[in-house]
Amino acid sequence: MEIETKGLTAAIRCFALAAAVAIPVAAAEPLASWNDTQPKQTIVGFIEKVTNRGSGDFVPEPERIAVFDNDGTLWSEQPLYFQALYAFDRVKATASEHPEWKDTEPFASVLKGDMQGALAGGEAALLKLVMASHAGMTTDEFNEVVSAWIATAKHPTTGKAYTEMVYQPMLELLDYLRANGFKTFIVSGGGIEFMRVFTEKVYGVPPEQVVGSTIKTQFEMRDGKPVLVKLPEIDFIDDKEGKPVGINRFIGRRPIAAFGNSDGDLQMLQWTAAGEGARLCLYVHHTDGDREWAYDRESHVGQLDKGLDEANKQGWVVVDMKADWKTIFPEKP
Amino acid sequence: MEIETKGLTAAIRCFALAAAVAIPVAAAEPLASWNDTQPKQTIVGFIEKVTNRGSGDFVPEPERIAVFDNDGTLWSEQPLYFQALYAFDRVKATASEHPEWKDTEPFASVLKGDMQGALAGGEAALLKLVMASHAGMTTDEFNEVVSAWIATAKHPTTGKAYTEMVYQPMLELLDYLRANGFKTFIVSGGGIEFMRVFTEKVYGVPPEQVVGSTIKTQFEMRDGKPVLVKLPEIDFIDDKEGKPVGINRFIGRRPIAAFGNSDGDLQMLQWTAAGEGARLCLYVHHTDGDREWAYDRESHVGQLDKGLDEANKQGWVVVDMKADWKTIFPEKP
Repeated sequence: MEIETKGLTAAIRCFALAAAVAIPVAAAEPLASWNDTQPKQTIVGFIEKVTNRGSGDFVPEPERIAVFDNDGTLWSEQPLYFQALYAFDRVKATASEHPEWKDTEPFASVLKGDMQGALAGGEAALLKLVMASHAGMTTDEFNEVVSAWIATAKHPTTGKAYTEMVYQPMLELLDYLRANGFKTFIVSGGGIEFMRVFTEKVYGVPPEQVVGSTIKTQFEMRDGKPVLVKLPEIDFIDDKEGKPVGINRFIGRRPIAAFGNSDGDLQMLQWTAAGEGARLCLYVHHTDGDREWAYDRESHVGQLDKGLDEANKQGWVVVDMKADWKTIFPEKP
Repeated sequence: MEIETKGLTAAIRCFALAAAVAIPVAAAEPLASWNDTQPKQTIVGFIEKVTNRGSGDFVPEPERIAVFDNDGTLWSEQPLYFQALYAFDRVKATASEHPEWKDTEPFASVLKGDMQGALAGGEAALLKLVMASHAGMTTDEFNEVVSAWIATAKHPTTGKAYTEMVYQPMLELLDYLRANGFKTFIVSGGGIEFMRVFTEKVYGVPPEQVVGSTIKTQFEMRDGKPVLVKLPEIDFIDDKEGKPVGINRFIGRRPIAAFGNSDGDLQMLQWTAAGEGARLCLYVHHTDGDREWAYDRESHVGQLDKGLDEANKQGWVVVDMKADWKTIFPEKP
């Protein structure tokens, strides 16, 4: 166990080093995977304005805060949020320690591979699955479990690793913003510790710039060594009205740019838009059923309904994935 | 009101700019206000080790996380935490809107200038004062109120502005760490939004690197404009066992250096020390009754008792303010 933990630490250090030496996208060709349509033009125009000292819209670097939703904005979220798929895999992997799960929902359905049945119990069922797969271990143990899962697990329909299902145009957007003095944050309904395992390596976003939902943790001394134990109790849900609350709590200043894809991001975009000076609010609209998935107003994940109306009313950028993006996922290295 | 808010925003932008162009202390003479005693030697030795690629203790930049307590570590905390003094001043300033306070404790004592009487009710009384001075307004309003207070309020015994009662040697330590690739965080029992008003200007620590205690906030639309309202309900106390919890939640990785002055910082130092590789844990010991205050094991604020024993046992650095610091407060500009 000790050796594995050390291995993990070494791997994390290695990721961190890679992130530290990453070379920003050359300013000459930003957003290479974006077609030269209105979204790209608006993004570039915004960046030129806020970074130009001569412009009335100039924003000093410390205030160049950009916030990104994760599920459906930086990576895919179909057929279900990837963190829920982790929970299913984790329940299967630990079932031998829980013989009672064979006869208890939602676990019984998960073990039979019946995703629909597992989710039939609604939020209460999902919460049980989350707690069974996220709580009852130390933070170090959880990091180790998720690291091992994300390094090996495959998406049920594409067969890709989950970290290959990130959006190439959004990776370029993250790079472009950072090359222009922005500090990029993730503000997601997903679990904060789940995301932190991969955000630095995959998105170049370090753990301290990840805001997400949290469960309670407790400090304990075990054999004279301090540990943090993850408790089966929700602490904070970083979604909808929770997103501006989370931004205020974790970041402490209002972003000038916000990127989302669903109604869960609406209040984050409203909060961002309501500040003074130039603002960029953008929705990714899932319109590409061939290369990814097509869904919006009626979807069971990433529903985009009220948000789409508000975007049209406010003139926010709406990315049509099919028309505006040359590629969806990164090419394999 | 609108004009004042704009003025505040302009002021904050001005601070932010100043922070962005601040020139780090020349590497040639770091820690100029520290005597050449064991604490300075240990700090310099640690920095040389973790920044030397050839050393077995080398730490990549993204992992160079340093955490600082605030009250008693970066600025004074006598005769009472400065945030409590803000609460007293705020109660006095708003008393005309609350005629009932004249006959209700702890407010009645505060209005009579009887600090002892106000605190006689213990934690419950203090909580009432905190809520009366921190809740029931929007986050923007709170920032404005605290900004105005800190720009004008004077310490009851020294007559100095509170932001002049910061420790010059610790300002140099913050600069020295940052000049060596560290990201510096504040992790304090104080209110997160209270501190964020001044930390960037005074310490060079931006709002997103401040961790502290929080009260609940609520997102609301008022006249079509989103606001965050501060509610009279504790969310999280970032003290003692709460400090490692706060570090894990907000920063998401373990610091390699931690600085405190009281038993409230003990778990933060233990959590920091328990990581692998080189670590620096340091206590500021208030030993200088002439230039500042002298207190430790029996103090009503910043009690340092168990922490002092643990520091001696573990070989952590203990700064003797009288012997190790050439100056305490910065010279007036």
